[in-house]
Amino acid sequence: MTTSTHETEIISDPHVPLVRIIREFDAPPERVFRAHTDPELFARWNGPRRHVMRYDHFDCRTGGSYRYLLESAGNEYGFRGCFHEVRPSELIVQTFTFEGLPDGVALERLIFEDIGNGRTRLTATSLVDSFEGRDAFVASGMEEGVREGYQRLDELLAG
Amino acid sequence: MTTSTHETEIISDPHVPLVRIIREFDAPPERVFRAHTDPELFARWNGPRRHVMRYDHFDCRTGGSYRYLLESAGNEYGFRGCFHEVRPSELIVQTFTFEGLPDGVALERLIFEDIGNGRTRLTATSLVDSFEGRDAFVASGMEEGVREGYQRLDELLAG
Repeated sequence: MTTSTHETEIISDPHVPLVRIIREFDAPPERVFRAHTDPELFARWNGPRRHVMRYDHFDCRTGGSYRYLLESAGNEYGFRGCFHEVRPSELIVQTFTFEGLPDGVALERLIFEDIGNGRTRLTATSLVDSFEGRDAFVASGMEEGVREGYQRLDELLAG
Repeated sequence: MTTSTHETEIISDPHVPLVRIIREFDAPPERVFRAHTDPELFARWNGPRRHVMRYDHFDCRTGGSYRYLLESAGNEYGFRGCFHEVRPSELIVQTFTFEGLPDGVALERLIFEDIGNGRTRLTATSLVDSFEGRDAFVASGMEEGVREGYQRLDELLAG
C-alpha cells in the first residue's frame, strides 16, 4: 500500500476568532477516529516527531477529561481539557488549554467525514474569544506541529 | 438584612460572537461561587421560577461534567456540558449545550470578583462560533431566565 501525500489546509476565519484545519486521510472514519481516542495510538502521532508524549490522564468519552505532556530537549509542555462530546466515528467536541498560557481556552470541534473509497476528511476547528489570541496561536509555530503530526498519523494508518 | 435590587447587564460583544452578563451580589465570592458548584444550592436558583430542576449528574470540579433537566408545564429541557476548570471562589470555565439544539456548544467563563464590603461582581461570558447563533440565543428569551434566576440567587444569599 502506498500513502498519498496530503495537504493540510489551515484557514483563519475572517468573521470569528476561529482556525479551521482540513486534512484528508487514506483510511475510513472509524480508524481515523480511533487514532484520536485510543491513548496508545494518539501518543504515536500527536505533535512533532522530536517530542515525547507522556500522559497524566486521557479519558476520551463524553464528560471525560485529559492532560498530557510533550517533552522536548529537557523542556516539558502541559496540555489539558475536557471532552464535551465524543460521538463514535463522527465528532469530538473538547476544550484545550496550553498550561503555559493557563487562562487561554479553546473550544475545539473535530468532524470525521466519510468521503468514500475508504477515505476520511477531518475538519478541526478551534474557537477562542479574541482575534489577537487566535492570530498569536497561528503565529506560534503550531502549523509545523500540526503538519508533522498528520504525517505521522498517515504513517500509523498505513502501517 | 435587606437585599438591594441589582441590574443584570447583558451585552452582545460587537467584535466576537460572545454574550457578556454582569451582575453584582450582596455576598462574598466564596458564597456566590458555592451557590454555583454545590448541586443542592444551584438547583434552588438556576433558571426561571416556574421550572423544576432535576439532575442527571452534576460533578462540578476541573475535569468533571454535568447534565440536568428543567421541567415546566409537562415539558422537559435538557442541558449538559463539561467543566474545563473550577478554581475555588475565582473562576469556572465550562461548556454548555441545550439538548434541543445538540450541535450548538458554548464555551462559558464565570469570573467571581471581590468588590469589597462583602460583595461580588460576577461576569459570565458565553462564546459560540457564529454571530447568528449568538443573536438567536439572546433573542430566545434567555434574558428572562437569567434575570429571574439571579433574583432567586439574591434571595438564597439573603436567607
